[in-house]
Amino acid sequence: MASATPLVPSDGASPLLSTGTRWAIRLKPEDDVVVATRPVEAGTPLERAGFEGSEEFTGWKTRTKIGLGHKVAIRDLETGAPVRKYGQIIGFASQPIQVGDWVHVHNLRADRFERPVEHSPQAGRAGSWRPEPMEPRTFQGYPRGDGRVGTRNYLAVISTVNCSAATSRFVAERFREPSWRRLFPNLDGVFALTHQGGCGLPLNGRDHQTLARVLAGFARHPNVAGYVVIGLGCEVAQADHLIESQALRRATSVGGPADVLNAPPLVLTIQEQGGIEATVQAGVEAVRRLMPAANQHVRRQTPASKLCVALECGGSDGASGLTANPALGVAADLVVGQGGTVILGETTEIYGAEHLLIERAVTPEVAAKLADRIAWWEDYVARFGATIDNNPSPGNKAGGLTTIYEKSLGALAKAGSSPLCDVVEYGQAPTCPGLIFMDTPGYDPVCTTGLVAGGANVLVFTTGRGSVLGLRPTPCLKVATNTPMYRRMIDDMDLDAGVILDGVPVDQVGRAIFEAILRVASGEPTKSDRLGVGEDEFVPWTIGPTL
Amino acid sequence: MASATPLVPSDGASPLLSTGTRWAIRLKPEDDVVVATRPVEAGTPLERAGFEGSEEFTGWKTRTKIGLGHKVAIRDLETGAPVRKYGQIIGFASQPIQVGDWVHVHNLRADRFERPVEHSPQAGRAGSWRPEPMEPRTFQGYPRGDGRVGTRNYLAVISTVNCSAATSRFVAERFREPSWRRLFPNLDGVFALTHQGGCGLPLNGRDHQTLARVLAGFARHPNVAGYVVIGLGCEVAQADHLIESQALRRATSVGGPADVLNAPPLVLTIQEQGGIEATVQAGVEAVRRLMPAANQHVRRQTPASKLCVALECGGSDGASGLTANPALGVAADLVVGQGGTVILGETTEIYGAEHLLIERAVTPEVAAKLADRIAWWEDYVARFGATIDNNPSPGNKAGGLTTIYEKSLGALAKAGSSPLCDVVEYGQAPTCPGLIFMDTPGYDPVCTTGLVAGGANVLVFTTGRGSVLGLRPTPCLKVATNTPMYRRMIDDMDLDAGVILDGVPVDQVGRAIFEAILRVASGEPTKSDRLGVGEDEFVPWTIGPTL
Ligand SMILES: [Ca+2]
Ligand SMILES: [Ca+2]
Ligand SMILES: [Ca+2]
Ligand SMILES: [Ca+2]
Ligand SMILES: [Ca+2]
Repeated sequence: MASATPLVPSDGASPLLSTGTRWAIRLKPEDDVVVATRPVEAGTPLERAGFEGSEEFTGWKTRTKIGLGHKVAIRDLETGAPVRKYGQIIGFASQPIQVGDWVHVHNLRADRFERPVEHSPQAGRAGSWRPEPMEPRTFQGYPRGDGRVGTRNYLAVISTVNCSAATSRFVAERFREPSWRRLFPNLDGVFALTHQGGCGLPLNGRDHQTLARVLAGFARHPNVAGYVVIGLGCEVAQADHLIESQALRRATSVGGPADVLNAPPLVLTIQEQGGIEATVQAGVEAVRRLMPAANQHVRRQTPASKLCVALECGGSDGASGLTANPALGVAADLVVGQGGTVILGETTEIYGAEHLLIERAVTPEVAAKLADRIAWWEDYVARFGATIDNNPSPGNKAGGLTTIYEKSLGALAKAGSSPLCDVVEYGQAPTCPGLIFMDTPGYDPVCTTGLVAGGANVLVFTTGRGSVLGLRPTPCLKVATNTPMYRRMIDDMDLDAGVILDGVPVDQVGRAIFEAILRVASGEPTKSDRLGVGEDEFVPWTIGPTL
Repeated sequence: MASATPLVPSDGASPLLSTGTRWAIRLKPEDDVVVATRPVEAGTPLERAGFEGSEEFTGWKTRTKIGLGHKVAIRDLETGAPVRKYGQIIGFASQPIQVGDWVHVHNLRADRFERPVEHSPQAGRAGSWRPEPMEPRTFQGYPRGDGRVGTRNYLAVISTVNCSAATSRFVAERFREPSWRRLFPNLDGVFALTHQGGCGLPLNGRDHQTLARVLAGFARHPNVAGYVVIGLGCEVAQADHLIESQALRRATSVGGPADVLNAPPLVLTIQEQGGIEATVQAGVEAVRRLMPAANQHVRRQTPASKLCVALECGGSDGASGLTANPALGVAADLVVGQGGTVILGETTEIYGAEHLLIERAVTPEVAAKLADRIAWWEDYVARFGATIDNNPSPGNKAGGLTTIYEKSLGALAKAGSSPLCDVVEYGQAPTCPGLIFMDTPGYDPVCTTGLVAGGANVLVFTTGRGSVLGLRPTPCLKVATNTPMYRRMIDDMDLDAGVILDGVPVDQVGRAIFEAILRVASGEPTKSDRLGVGEDEFVPWTIGPTL
């Protein structure tokens, strides 16, 4: 009954322990190093290590003990040579390295790495990336008639301010009893969007604008067929301001009579209605009026280009960068290859290694947008007398991470290798398909709220310690980085990427994630769908001041 | 179905309109001005204006038109003379003023007001204040055996982090069905404390410490008989850190077997339990184990000195400073006179006029604490390139507020006139009875969360526009500033202070609030108790950074 799940269970066995003789994985064919999936002694043969191509290493052995998660050279490297992991440079040899050598702080340095001050498209890899050839795929989505395609079909009750949160929740709770499902079988449910803000903040200030953008992003989310807005009446974040500044309309543009579709949104204020009870009754009536139109939406075959997949990691562990994240990167590249969109967030997780993303930008303008956001973060944390320290901690180093580039690449691995097509503000919708970076904190509920506000219709969440996040209206696929946690939390985990440590290739697990995305987009419930999780995790980003 | 309730209803009648010939109120006997409760023409007799003592003004008339909420002189004042409202100086005559004159920006200035740079106890009024003689009063409370006395008897499910919010809520929801009430009739219910923080923040930083203080304040609140803590497992705000840093014990010290009382708190983590469903089951079991001991607490006659009343205003209007706030001030003085405690928050509402409170401090040390908090706020908002503008807005001035002192006194009026005994941090428990100031934002849910974390066992909330806040585990009495809103929101409002505009003396309404506090403390349900409001409004203050 106490604190945290230990990374190493009490029996001393590591959750990263692989079976059989396999003991190493190679993340990309071009890598100069492989990673140990269990500790091995000096003199352990590379030939049967189990990584792709290990059979070619007849006669080669490890030259020292190698710890779990640590790197072993599989090429001879001269002093100053770049060293690649994830197919990317994580640093430079600070002394000659031979096949079988342990590669860590004693022979790998990051300081010679010249981060490009400006983006140079010819130096970047955006132009040369090509998706793997693959036949066009489809899923069964809800086309909304305006280009947007939903993967779920919800009605929402949106509170403008904390003062109307309880009332909004009471309205949604009246639809928990599934009696309406017989009449409206195409509707997935009614949920409340409640939050802690909306007043005590500067009018039209940053937090007010962010809240409006996020609430509007959920209101017009492809998974939301219609919604009711509930306010108190005297809050700073007025419903009228929300609707006018965001040009909101009542419902999605297919499936109902025209008067419902193009009308302004339904708005109820507690002060006008005369209190909570009267507002709950009016809110229930308003939701009921939206149900017939919402029910006219049906799933249809839709190209996979309509996928918009949010990428998130939380509760990471030493396996995150080896299993679930690179596998999700494979899936992300497949989504992009289909013409779809993937959104990466978590600016704090790439801080200090942002050039790794900047060099993938399709234009200097996109590169500059990311550099601007990095500068904003430096200023923001400095206001608190703090800095973002994304350098490998002593614990990270003990676990085998040598440089900040290597650490950031473990998080970036989720985003695969496709070009960076745009950088958007928190909660902003992508303007084009492909890989999009959204500026968000790393904190899971805040990050995912931004990604879903941007229109993500599937969320894939990798976790090592075991996060249980869901976030309506978007289904959340949770990918475990290690098999012991996957088994222990089988009620909450959807997929096990820990099998990579047992020798299943990263690419194969990535393809399985891609297939799962298509199934979930077509209506297969995720574990968090089944559990009914996803209202408490709506947490719009605020920076203050709270007045 | 649109935005805000107008201050003036659509029929053009003002909610401040009083009946009959009465048209002015006098807030304190020593005041130099009275306030118009409806617009009157030039030449309107003062004699029948209806304020206390108006019958002595035979022959005197208003010398100009007087707007609603505006001030009329009832003494001749020379240039430079102090002008009193609320019994306190709101400014100085900038030209000679005669009885019947309109008093506003044209003849009242604040700039000659010398704010004391240092506290001088002899200049302050702390030493001379004496409570009105009154017989000792009692209420029926839950004595907890350690000096604390509850006014409700709840069990709580406390989430350490947003990642365990849904799980905590699921546990509390399992006790909504009242089947357990037959077995445990002395228990008021089970509620969940959920929030948006707990991770993505600096370890042991300000937000982490604030969250721990607030959660601990609710855990050991006199209205909480026992609690279960639910965490995810890998969050920054670990349950162990909470329990150790705050020295938490499992349950209150009366009413159960010793092993329950002195044991460490029950803690469940989702990662150890193996997921949401397993944790919900374990959480329900843990709550059930606490129920028999909680049920042994019974109400007993308790001195009113055990009252700890939180004072809050929100959704204020032009009548707030004339009706509900001064009446609550009368009640606050009565509570203090009984040896009880009242806690005022909302630093931003007194900003710029803090000397009005500082001069009431019992010692220079207490005065310095408040000055320190003011300096902190100046620095905090400056970090955002902002300032706290608490000066009367054009709308405030149109409504009759002339100076920042007058405006702040409208908010301060809630705190009556007793000495300022201490200044505490957000969520910190008072160290002595009497009037306590807690440093909080003005934003209602954030402020009241701090006040209740400090141990308030009754919350009195004055509102003009109609706030519907509740906050478990503390009953919230809502006092309307005007009768039209009181009537329109009768399902949510407990008391109508708008009758002051009809001539009921402020003192009489204040006494009625005091009696209502005793009744509610003894178990009489408030409107928000009946509605079941009070879980969404738990909003611990955060200042950032969110990482
Ligand atoms: Ca929420
Ligand atoms: Ca994250
Ligand atoms: Ca909450
Ligand atoms: Ca206020
Ligand atoms: Ca307030």
